[in-house]
Amino acid sequence: MKRYQALAADLASSIERGLLKPGDRLPSVRQASRDRGLSPATVFEAYYLLEARGLVESRPRSGYYVRAAPPSLPPEPEHRSAPDGEARPVMVSERVFRMLASTMSRDVVPLGSAFPDPHLFPLARLGRALAAGVAELEPWRTVENLTPGALPLRRQIALRYLAGGLRLDPDELVVCNGALEALNLSLAATCRPGDVVAVESPCFYACLQALEARGLHALEVATDPREGMDLDALDAAIARHRPRAVWLMSNFQNPLGSAMGPEKKRALVELVARHQLPLIEDDVYGELHFGRQRPVSCKAFDTQGWVLHCSSFSKTLAPGYRIGWVAPGRFLHEVAKQKLATSLTTCVPAQLGLARYLERRGFERHLVGLRDTLQARRDRYLDAVQRVFPDGTRVSRPAGGYFLWLELPSGTDTLELQQQAMARGISLAPGPMFSATQGFGHCLRLNYGHPLDERMDAALRQVGEMAKRLAG
Amino acid sequence: MKRYQALAADLASSIERGLLKPGDRLPSVRQASRDRGLSPATVFEAYYLLEARGLVESRPRSGYYVRAAPPSLPPEPEHRSAPDGEARPVMVSERVFRMLASTMSRDVVPLGSAFPDPHLFPLARLGRALAAGVAELEPWRTVENLTPGALPLRRQIALRYLAGGLRLDPDELVVCNGALEALNLSLAATCRPGDVVAVESPCFYACLQALEARGLHALEVATDPREGMDLDALDAAIARHRPRAVWLMSNFQNPLGSAMGPEKKRALVELVARHQLPLIEDDVYGELHFGRQRPVSCKAFDTQGWVLHCSSFSKTLAPGYRIGWVAPGRFLHEVAKQKLATSLTTCVPAQLGLARYLERRGFERHLVGLRDTLQARRDRYLDAVQRVFPDGTRVSRPAGGYFLWLELPSGTDTLELQQQAMARGISLAPGPMFSATQGFGHCLRLNYGHPLDERMDAALRQVGEMAKRLAG
Repeated sequence: MKRYQALAADLASSIERGLLKPGDRLPSVRQASRDRGLSPATVFEAYYLLEARGLVESRPRSGYYVRAAPPSLPPEPEHRSAPDGEARPVMVSERVFRMLASTMSRDVVPLGSAFPDPHLFPLARLGRALAAGVAELEPWRTVENLTPGALPLRRQIALRYLAGGLRLDPDELVVCNGALEALNLSLAATCRPGDVVAVESPCFYACLQALEARGLHALEVATDPREGMDLDALDAAIARHRPRAVWLMSNFQNPLGSAMGPEKKRALVELVARHQLPLIEDDVYGELHFGRQRPVSCKAFDTQGWVLHCSSFSKTLAPGYRIGWVAPGRFLHEVAKQKLATSLTTCVPAQLGLARYLERRGFERHLVGLRDTLQARRDRYLDAVQRVFPDGTRVSRPAGGYFLWLELPSGTDTLELQQQAMARGISLAPGPMFSATQGFGHCLRLNYGHPLDERMDAALRQVGEMAKRLAG
Repeated sequence: MKRYQALAADLASSIERGLLKPGDRLPSVRQASRDRGLSPATVFEAYYLLEARGLVESRPRSGYYVRAAPPSLPPEPEHRSAPDGEARPVMVSERVFRMLASTMSRDVVPLGSAFPDPHLFPLARLGRALAAGVAELEPWRTVENLTPGALPLRRQIALRYLAGGLRLDPDELVVCNGALEALNLSLAATCRPGDVVAVESPCFYACLQALEARGLHALEVATDPREGMDLDALDAAIARHRPRAVWLMSNFQNPLGSAMGPEKKRALVELVARHQLPLIEDDVYGELHFGRQRPVSCKAFDTQGWVLHCSSFSKTLAPGYRIGWVAPGRFLHEVAKQKLATSLTTCVPAQLGLARYLERRGFERHLVGLRDTLQARRDRYLDAVQRVFPDGTRVSRPAGGYFLWLELPSGTDTLELQQQAMARGISLAPGPMFSATQGFGHCLRLNYGHPLDERMDAALRQVGEMAKRLAG
């Protein structure tokens, strides 16, 4: 057990035994650091972990407080995954294609959807920014704003990095058609068909699809449901399989909701640098943090340029606009070449419209509201899971994003559950979508980004009943 | 020599000898068909060929007329290309990347540019349509309009096909990020790395880049400078190399300007169907025809679904919007899967904005003006080529699009010419960009889509002088 983990366990025990009560303020990082003889970074890491587990919450300009006693919730998933350690070709795209197609209709209850509630975004304001931007679209701009992308937008993205403490030049960015294209370009720039890519277990299916489309092999690495990919397991996997790249989501991973602490991120970056291995970091959920601060990205520790940091506005501001980007580090030239060869450039009016919106400074306020809404919805869905799912269910406590990860009683067939639910107009994302080996057969990802209204509540109850019958 | 070629040669000879004079009307297709005992299709094919060669012109609702005697122009390129018949990996992307980067600035004279003059498009009207479309953007639309793309736009594209005599259901279309993504998705859906793809010689470099990015091998097939890929050569190449797909531009090929007649297109489609070989048809210039009718596409003869017809609005209406599409025939499902796996969907506001513009019926009028402008510019550039380039230069007479193809006196090094021109702020597209073997070292593609103003005239004269010295 590392020092920060020991401190977190100590504090968690104090909370459980009632020594620290709901509403109590934790000692400041500085004070705890002095009292316990630990570095401030270690204390921060421990508080971060407690926050991620929902035991404490941060309040702006004030500090960390013990959260009100949560209703008795099902336990969290605890065990790190145990993939078989083999690298293999991927064949998930048919399953994913059918599932995605089923979630595109508004008539289907979107529990399985990957998309956030589209009502959460300032589409009207964005539309006005787009209209104003397009009215000023001087013809040559359609040529000048080719890859790497419109400079006004790249400037805004660089400013966003700077606000997070990371200095990146606009010229180090390539604008993409969403983070999905960023991922594909990053793979194209670093791997050749037949190469092995290390991924989390479970892993976001879009990454598996991308590996499949490019003829790459997936190497699933043991992953902790709270803290993400296991670095010892990764190190061993690298030694055995010599992957050509690592792909992961460092913050609020899809589907687990796991998040790496800053020290683990630093260690990960050192590890990949030691192996001279590109790390493709998908960080699309980082801005959707419920804690006080945006969690850092691995990119923040990347002194040697091995991290290709991918993100987008699709989850935070502008779904459907398909504007993402990648900060490819030392692979900048290769990524830009791939972009030029596969889609030339990204929709120029959309780029300029977004840039204009971002220049007006409403984004931060929008994000604050979005995070609050999602956090409140998370709690309501957690309560509902407790009410309707069978005993023995475990459920994650994500500190950001909009997915819950459920482990149903072992033996529950979530592929069957998905079929039964779809027959009632309810989409689900069963565990096997998130693994090249079709593992996680008793797991389920639930989207809590939509309001828990009557229709949703009824759907959850139906799914819970079906799950109870399948769990036997 | 085929019948239509014989008829065309006969009429061309009559024009040269003055039996048919400028302004004379050719017999109607019906009359000529009766008089000569040929099918109307054969006569049409012959007239089409004469029109493509600039000897006759069609006038709306009237017929074909002998064109005013052209100023004495340099001769046309005559010989079909003679590639070595080998399939090989491609490495052009560095060269292309540098060239494209050099044409993105408005300070560089865009003779080498691939982009049309951005002033030729109704950007303001499009912007208003986009603004209106986005104002009505109901949130769920951002989800519902995922791949295969927004239905209102697919409907408009299907209507456009219908106007061209081709009945396609909107559900047979996949909207893409420009025709370049359409090409990439088509390759991904039909080929695996290491496969061979038959292409024209010379061939549009973006196709070579796409082959390179996907680890595919290029098999260049002999191509006629006026009538496109040679079908006997293609048949022989198929027998020898078993390519997995054919890629070509059937109308106003980039860079040659060549166009296949309808009977040749029919024969090509029969040929690929016989070999069960996908034909990826890039038809982005088809709407930019100077003749009376839009030339048909190969897709029009595709009864068995082997043709993947790719096009876009980037050259005709909305540069920078990155809206293209593919009608993938029997590969529909695979292409849609690839789209979902690589970029999820195409910018929804841009799709809806374009759909709205197209619903208002200004498109046809815009196209008529665009074609007239480009045709007039072609003639001015042809005159300039005659004035400034060295004796022994040959130049194409494209009947559509916006590129001239020049064969300079043999031995002229156009890569060197490109360097000298770039040093003076003039971009050029030298022949070797258009071949996996870096052939066509004495050839040059010139963009005539920009106004031939004083700056352009001076640039052309400078390039001509440099070419004379190099040819010297």
